[in-house]
Amino acid sequence: VVGGGIESVTEQTVAALGEDAVVGELLALCRPTLGPETIVGGGDDCAVVASASPDTWLLLKADSVIEGVHFLPETEPERVGWKALARVSSDMAAMGGTGLHALVSLAVPPNRSMDWLRGIYRGLASAAEALNISLVGGDTSHTTGPAWLSVALHGRVSADTCVLRSGGTPGDLLYVTGTLGGSFATGRHLDFTPRISEGTWLAAHKYPTAMMDLSDGLASDLPRLAKASRCGWRLDPHLIPCTEGCTVTQAMTDGEDFELLFAVSASTAESLEIAWSHVFPGTRLTRIGALTVPGDLGDPTFSTLHGYDHFQHP
Amino acid sequence: VVGGGIESVTEQTVAALGEDAVVGELLALCRPTLGPETIVGGGDDCAVVASASPDTWLLLKADSVIEGVHFLPETEPERVGWKALARVSSDMAAMGGTGLHALVSLAVPPNRSMDWLRGIYRGLASAAEALNISLVGGDTSHTTGPAWLSVALHGRVSADTCVLRSGGTPGDLLYVTGTLGGSFATGRHLDFTPRISEGTWLAAHKYPTAMMDLSDGLASDLPRLAKASRCGWRLDPHLIPCTEGCTVTQAMTDGEDFELLFAVSASTAESLEIAWSHVFPGTRLTRIGALTVPGDLGDPTFSTLHGYDHFQHP
Repeated sequence: VVGGGIESVTEQTVAALGEDAVVGELLALCRPTLGPETIVGGGDDCAVVASASPDTWLLLKADSVIEGVHFLPETEPERVGWKALARVSSDMAAMGGTGLHALVSLAVPPNRSMDWLRGIYRGLASAAEALNISLVGGDTSHTTGPAWLSVALHGRVSADTCVLRSGGTPGDLLYVTGTLGGSFATGRHLDFTPRISEGTWLAAHKYPTAMMDLSDGLASDLPRLAKASRCGWRLDPHLIPCTEGCTVTQAMTDGEDFELLFAVSASTAESLEIAWSHVFPGTRLTRIGALTVPGDLGDPTFSTLHGYDHFQHP
Repeated sequence: VVGGGIESVTEQTVAALGEDAVVGELLALCRPTLGPETIVGGGDDCAVVASASPDTWLLLKADSVIEGVHFLPETEPERVGWKALARVSSDMAAMGGTGLHALVSLAVPPNRSMDWLRGIYRGLASAAEALNISLVGGDTSHTTGPAWLSVALHGRVSADTCVLRSGGTPGDLLYVTGTLGGSFATGRHLDFTPRISEGTWLAAHKYPTAMMDLSDGLASDLPRLAKASRCGWRLDPHLIPCTEGCTVTQAMTDGEDFELLFAVSASTAESLEIAWSHVFPGTRLTRIGALTVPGDLGDPTFSTLHGYDHFQHP
């Protein structure tokens, strides 16, 4: 790899490569920097690092919302602020952990109204109150382009119960919470409540062998979980819990569901389903398929579907 | 405060308010969310929160670099990556702490070359190696506007020696490291080494009563430190250590110096100066003035100067 955008022979764009290839290359550049306190550095919902106590690990996660990509200029700023904090909290839930302290980086055009900015922070503060997170700081800049904010969340998980994407084995059953699809069309992506109670309960009872949150759509995210667990996967299309009015394809590819996808050993699945119905009677839980042997890519109908790609669907 | 940019009677822009007023309002919206683990939430170089050990506090800091604001389209991406990590490390140095783990949020136009993105990450990785920081993750998005990245740094400081902006008292002498001004003109803002050795040494020996790093220029930053310490301030213009070729006004207002500004009790100043000359013979240390009684705004020549304002100098 020879650097310098100007002199390079092949001017390969990030769009041509696609999000997963770009992220894979960037993670490889980061790997040599990882120190002894890093437990998981890249490739999972959150980074995991050691804390001053061996019983507790720290979770670190940053994610961005960008005008024109994750919200529209006319979107109420309160909902944008809510979404920005809720989505990083969802990543912590997917490891069985909870967020504690958030930093907000934000850039706006200089002619943006102060009322808009207040709305963003009112939304962030509402989510912080609801999710028991402290908004401890951040930075504000101007930009000549669309407004954006990035939230960095610092959280905590019990070292004993932290769930990674990589712990699944062939034969584990796959479950999702809620319904999938239509998150943009219904506006749910701006107002959703992250599955923190569900995620921490699942982890505390050690049901999931692997877990992640669905942000780019099942068609993109399930292969990532399966790959991290060195498994193949099979889905039963009739079982996918589609949001009312959505097709199975929409449920697989719309993205921004912020539901939990997790694998459970077949031997504990019945116990999970019984307990779940008592603890979370209001949250739908659906078995949608299973992890299989490596190389099994599931129903060919599904292996050609793609979820949201940040560099190929702009 | 009534929300909703569209219906509001006064469409006050962020530029009209100015950075300090904007940040002040936003911090007030965050304050109700602060929990019992928050030691410093907003208004200092970093946020400070409790850790699993009472002897150690965690430092949290995020900051952004934006194309067209903090770097130019033609800037070598390696230097942009270096700057992005070095500047948040400088904030930790200003509290006597060190960075440990970093997350990188990044957005680029889809037609941006992969070589440019590799360059950014090579620069981040170089800084991470030099500063002993692990790059543990992040997120990548596309944007229709200029490229940007935000780095969130998680670090550590001894609870016993953490230095805030607010500990100065009238009569304390003011010092700066290095020389001020010309950081943009010379390109130093892209290549500087944060004053981590100096900051941690100062804190460990409990010399500073208050400290911060200079990012917006002494003319903006000194009044912030003085205000946090409920003091006034006086500068001796003849003592300001100007970068070669810079005027005193440039040294006060150019910004992006990433040098340390700190206050020291008059009773320990001589001891500091002697020790410093032995420990850091290569780093200039200059006494530039003193904190004074509240309301004293220093030489009137200086009270009319302003450093960089993100919303008023775009």
